Amino acid sequence: MTVAAAPTRFGLDVYRGRLRRAAAEAATRDVGALLITPSIDYTYLLGYAAPGFERLTCLVLSADGRASLVVPHLEEPLARHELGELANDLAIVPWDETEDPFWVVRDLLGAGLMRVAIQDQMWARFVLRLRAALDPIELVEAGPTLAALRRSKSAEEVDRLRAAAGAADQAMNRIRATRLSGRTERHVSLEIRDLLLAAGHESADFAIVASGPNSASPHHDPGDRVIEVGDALVLDIGGFRAGYGSDTTRTVFVGDPPSEFSELYAVLREAQAAACAAIRPGVGAQEIDRVSRGPIAAAGFGDSFIHRTGHGIGMETHEEPYIVEGNADPLLPGDAFSIEPGIYLTGRWGARIEDIVVCTDGGGEILNQSSRELLVVE
Amino acid sequence: MTVAAAPTRFGLDVYRGRLRRAAAEAATRDVGALLITPSIDYTYLLGYAAPGFERLTCLVLSADGRASLVVPHLEEPLARHELGELANDLAIVPWDETEDPFWVVRDLLGAGLMRVAIQDQMWARFVLRLRAALDPIELVEAGPTLAALRRSKSAEEVDRLRAAAGAADQAMNRIRATRLSGRTERHVSLEIRDLLLAAGHESADFAIVASGPNSASPHHDPGDRVIEVGDALVLDIGGFRAGYGSDTTRTVFVGDPPSEFSELYAVLREAQAAACAAIRPGVGAQEIDRVSRGPIAAAGFGDSFIHRTGHGIGMETHEEPYIVEGNADPLLPGDAFSIEPGIYLTGRWGARIEDIVVCTDGGGEILNQSSRELLVVE
Repeated sequence: MTVAAAPTRFGLDVYRGRLRRAAAEAATRDVGALLITPSIDYTYLLGYAAPGFERLTCLVLSADGRASLVVPHLEEPLARHELGELANDLAIVPWDETEDPFWVVRDLLGAGLMRVAIQDQMWARFVLRLRAALDPIELVEAGPTLAALRRSKSAEEVDRLRAAAGAADQAMNRIRATRLSGRTERHVSLEIRDLLLAAGHESADFAIVASGPNSASPHHDPGDRVIEVGDALVLDIGGFRAGYGSDTTRTVFVGDPPSEFSELYAVLREAQAAACAAIRPGVGAQEIDRVSRGPIAAAGFGDSFIHRTGHGIGMETHEEPYIVEGNADPLLPGDAFSIEPGIYLTGRWGARIEDIVVCTDGGGEILNQSSRELLVVE
Repeated sequence: MTVAAAPTRFGLDVYRGRLRRAAAEAATRDVGALLITPSIDYTYLLGYAAPGFERLTCLVLSADGRASLVVPHLEEPLARHELGELANDLAIVPWDETEDPFWVVRDLLGAGLMRVAIQDQMWARFVLRLRAALDPIELVEAGPTLAALRRSKSAEEVDRLRAAAGAADQAMNRIRATRLSGRTERHVSLEIRDLLLAAGHESADFAIVASGPNSASPHHDPGDRVIEVGDALVLDIGGFRAGYGSDTTRTVFVGDPPSEFSELYAVLREAQAAACAAIRPGVGAQEIDRVSRGPIAAAGFGDSFIHRTGHGIGMETHEEPYIVEGNADPLLPGDAFSIEPGIYLTGRWGARIEDIVVCTDGGGEILNQSSRELLVVE
């Protein structure tokens, strides 16, 4: 039988504090209200995952701290049940099937607002209908307001990320200890998903197994290719444990690697370690990206590192801060993100090394512990 | 080990035809181009599910039939691999991490367009950035254009819906044959998910088990309540099989039902059967909703039927056509949707009966076959 998800909710005070800080953060950005539809932002603020369907569910959080929850009538009992005591802090406003919920939102906002921020992943159909109903209020992205809260992980949140990383390490160590040649990528990928679940993840969201020439495709979809001796093999795996994400990549070689590959890998390893070592509060995110590019470019592989160095991680696998050229934002204590440079030679092979790192006052704390050596597998 | 998903792709000509018809449909609506980000619409048109992340992936389909795919550079190999031969029909336009993909879209659209339609579930952050890059082009909802295609299910699609319904029926029959009293809602819900997978679903997406007073909450989240004799029990289950959805609800009673509940159930059953019998091409969707409300209102339960009668189903569990007051659109052959009236008495009990029905020239074909009697379970 399927395993039930681990309880992921924090105490009531955590959500009260988040709602208060989100409202205050909106105020400092001249945003009159936040409109948050079901999403991780919604779950972050209210402590439960609402179904995201074609009927509008929307948290209306004013910059002065007043909070209302617009919900389809038929989901009112569910919302009250899931909110528990937090329901006392909100006005719950159900709407009926034949009402227009966008005008309900307009009425809640009241008069005089200039700018309202909408949740980053809100559906376009809701955005266009809100724009019509709220005209002439300007709609802006709520992402920066929410990211300001979410990127600062609390000690409790870092504990969950550490546990997720440890579970992913365990799955990675197990799969690297098995015989991989003679099996299809898909078969190995399915085993990794099972290993992630066995290690305590409530969901296994991805298990990239990219073998031989496929290892040059960073987001390869594991398929029918049979892994064979002489293959480079990129394993990029992750999921969620107690609501927080894991994401780690290791590259192995099936049989003894040619010196050309070992040399490429040594460059990559140096780049990844240098980027991890450069992490500290105050350094611009793009600086870390530049550090990881340095050794790779110096070795002549600059054009073969075709993606950013990393992405934030928390309740989503990809969130702020992004470790990419153009993002000058200084790193802050509590930021958690991946460091994952890669080198990809089309038609031939590729390699990537990825760890999750937390920025602390004392530098980067690397959460993943599994070996970064170029392991030789069978 | 986890079971691999069944192959769900149709032949190449199916996708060529869909792209052609989508462009033609856009033209008839004075829409210059469709912008389709990863979503079921994207999968419907291109035959594969692209990852929907913070990097823009977007199909740009002009009303004249030209198609371009804007993809992050690192996902170009994946896109080419997944598209297969269809890649020859598209211009694939990769963008690098430091480029602005919204201006790439603008360049592809060229000059002179007045209106562009955006995918219904496109992320708000993309909508706002496109709006800025495409100004003064008007952005409208792509939903109606895509729904015009997607709601007309082909015979092959109806076959898949029929197989999904049959698998859900099998799970429903099995769970109703087991002892349910003494177990928690959550425990039964997990077993239903396993039964859906065992019956050939690739995913089990929901398994509402709402017992006793919880049966009055239409979207109840199964919890720790222990099912006991004297409970009404609403079971609403579904998932996906070969890419097409199932969704069926049955209400059972634990032990002998009181006559008051049996009478309520008889009213509901009459309402559900009447709605199914009223289905034929040309009838307005809202007419079906009114038919299902008739017997319920006549019995004095009108205010206790707090949701619409049904929703379309196909590659999404909720899609067009919606069977709701206010939707005067005539039903068409090939429409597939749920008929699911319910009666909910807060604090006491509730009941719902749901089948998937396909509109054919000869009337409604009910895909679900499991008994709609008020079964007494242990």
